[in-house]
Amino acid sequence: MTSELEKKIIRQVKKAKDVANQLINFDTNKKNNVLEIIADELENNKDIIIKYNKSDIENAIESRLSKALIDRLTLNEKRIIEMCNGVRNIAKLNDPVGEVISEWVPPSGIRIKKVRVPIGVICMIYESRPNVTVDSVALCLKSGNAVILRGGSETINTNRILITIIKESLKKAKFPVNSVQFIDTPDRKAINVLSILDEYIDLIILRGGEQMIRSIRRKATVPIIAHGKGLCHTYIDKDADINKAIKIAYNAKVQRPGVCNAMETLLVHKKIAEKILPPLAAEYKKSNVELRGCKKTLKILKDIKPAVESDWSTEYLSLILSIKIVDSIEDAIKHINTYGSKHSESIVTENISSAEKFLREVDASAVFHNASTRLHDGGVFGLGAEIGISTQKLHARGTMGLKELTTTKYIVYGTGQIRE
Amino acid sequence: MTSELEKKIIRQVKKAKDVANQLINFDTNKKNNVLEIIADELENNKDIIIKYNKSDIENAIESRLSKALIDRLTLNEKRIIEMCNGVRNIAKLNDPVGEVISEWVPPSGIRIKKVRVPIGVICMIYESRPNVTVDSVALCLKSGNAVILRGGSETINTNRILITIIKESLKKAKFPVNSVQFIDTPDRKAINVLSILDEYIDLIILRGGEQMIRSIRRKATVPIIAHGKGLCHTYIDKDADINKAIKIAYNAKVQRPGVCNAMETLLVHKKIAEKILPPLAAEYKKSNVELRGCKKTLKILKDIKPAVESDWSTEYLSLILSIKIVDSIEDAIKHINTYGSKHSESIVTENISSAEKFLREVDASAVFHNASTRLHDGGVFGLGAEIGISTQKLHARGTMGLKELTTTKYIVYGTGQIRE
Repeated sequence: MTSELEKKIIRQVKKAKDVANQLINFDTNKKNNVLEIIADELENNKDIIIKYNKSDIENAIESRLSKALIDRLTLNEKRIIEMCNGVRNIAKLNDPVGEVISEWVPPSGIRIKKVRVPIGVICMIYESRPNVTVDSVALCLKSGNAVILRGGSETINTNRILITIIKESLKKAKFPVNSVQFIDTPDRKAINVLSILDEYIDLIILRGGEQMIRSIRRKATVPIIAHGKGLCHTYIDKDADINKAIKIAYNAKVQRPGVCNAMETLLVHKKIAEKILPPLAAEYKKSNVELRGCKKTLKILKDIKPAVESDWSTEYLSLILSIKIVDSIEDAIKHINTYGSKHSESIVTENISSAEKFLREVDASAVFHNASTRLHDGGVFGLGAEIGISTQKLHARGTMGLKELTTTKYIVYGTGQIRE
Repeated sequence: MTSELEKKIIRQVKKAKDVANQLINFDTNKKNNVLEIIADELENNKDIIIKYNKSDIENAIESRLSKALIDRLTLNEKRIIEMCNGVRNIAKLNDPVGEVISEWVPPSGIRIKKVRVPIGVICMIYESRPNVTVDSVALCLKSGNAVILRGGSETINTNRILITIIKESLKKAKFPVNSVQFIDTPDRKAINVLSILDEYIDLIILRGGEQMIRSIRRKATVPIIAHGKGLCHTYIDKDADINKAIKIAYNAKVQRPGVCNAMETLLVHKKIAEKILPPLAAEYKKSNVELRGCKKTLKILKDIKPAVESDWSTEYLSLILSIKIVDSIEDAIKHINTYGSKHSESIVTENISSAEKFLREVDASAVFHNASTRLHDGGVFGLGAEIGISTQKLHARGTMGLKELTTTKYIVYGTGQIRE
């Protein structure tokens, strides 16, 4: 039997589907206009947003959520203004819809254009950070998609007020209000319902823990792009520049340890280990990084903990780092392709052919030479904004911007051609 | 408990995964060379292939399979030579691996390249036509992927000999034999096993009936691209050129009715119906096409059957055509977006703005102006070869060639950059 919750969700999803057919006809100005109004209205209402956000913070404190998590869900004036400027930046980006990817005339004389079109209805399932709500609305509307939002229960009050303001802005801009649907329930069953509505939803973008992703993937019939875990490595090659290596390995671990593109395991070539590990460990010590080493590492860094097998497959998301000394670049690549999550991987070396080997053979969405894995980000990459980092290979891989929220269509112009 | 079948499949799939890591290092010549040898060996062994194929044909006759199906699985000298030339053509195509899609330097000074790389392990699940076996091997190897083949039980003998010859060719070319894995069992459980091996298989390409696709999609954890049903329309607009309209509508239905891009429903604007339907019906009559009309059509074509509601959602795949008279182009678009399978849709009109409206608002992988839907084909489009026609929106849409068998990777070159 269909529950009330299910009925309500289906009604919302159908509305989104209906409106998606209108959105394909909207020009860039109309889409940019609504984003500008959303940005202004959110900024005008920052006090009330902060008030609602406070109740989420109080609930989080009461539920004894971690400090890191509370920080993630907290909004203040600065963060709200950043959020609004983010929306304004998206308004400034090129509209991907209508872009002609290629155009050609095959022997039959038909003219074929491959063009970008909106995907249709995109459902976002995510946790904590309230700016994901606003970013998702802006990116989806700009790319001509209707959006269904299902944020985490820990920010439900903040999301409610954000959506109320966004809906008001849509009305003000004479933009279809149904193009944004908010699934306003903490009930996790809502996710199960959404994940099988493939008749109406074209794509689910999933930002969450590994277990959540696996369990949804198992049941879903809607295609999913997951922003999954990041078990990232830095490999310091025998031919590394010591100063670059220390700077990059320190940054990859310490600059913001709780995010997916931070390093979890450091691999060091045996020929450079004695030279690099002591000064690097001294740097890490200043930032209270807990080091866990393989047997060979323990011979050099005598006062650190031993790493056990499970360390190589653990995403710490905190100031813990496992260190392994490897015999060769081949061993480093093998370790990464075995334990890595195919997210972001870096080699530090002055040897170009070693770098090329690593960049080619490591299977990951982004591979770095002499640069920190922390740089894997839509903003840093110059894409303007990102809706997530795909850790899978289909449709989109790595940081995803506006283009990744489109699909393509062959448009064929004939003059009466038929199949002979 | 793990069954023997399951254990065997997992062993094969693991071998494919292992070999995929080697294939990324193979240059274009090595890949083209193996394709040339496969083509030659298949051609040299055409008599033995025909012998094995005969046993499939005999079994098919005994099982009373339809004539159309028996035709699809039949090989003869001409078809084998075509198949071999297909492989040689794929060898001539540009190698998609390594193609730099874009390259730029964001403000941080890192240099970013977005390049094409193989997907990894691709599993083909398909029915009948034995050339799909050979095409899939050629396309997957050329794009640097390992391939797992699970063909239909009705061609298992033909597939066995094709795979034997292909494996011999791989040995001869000193190409890893494990890069092609054949799931040699008629047991349908094999499909269930394959569909959840997401640890090793990166993509399943599914060519089969709608019901098969739905049931696999429900259980699968491996991402799927489905070559699904084609419920295609031709819309004859009030401003159509009568001669073009007759030629296109006749071709779309009659030239090869059993395939996915053939027309199933003809939509005709009310203002042109009386003029076009009688001569068009006369053409269809010559080819014994059974016509089923809406009420308004029956007033013009008095001797045809009435269409019922279920006709609008039926993929006949035979010489049956449903006809509906619509009041406007909006009605035609609405009908197509409601009943169509988003495959291939055509408008016949001399009115450019009507054409643009149709091409923009109809949601399908390929939309045609004054051309037959039958043209939606990798060969006709000039892509060289196709591995299927995707009826979904993610990763690949419409006819799929070599590029669609790749994913991308960001390669980032730094000089010590870190995240500030």
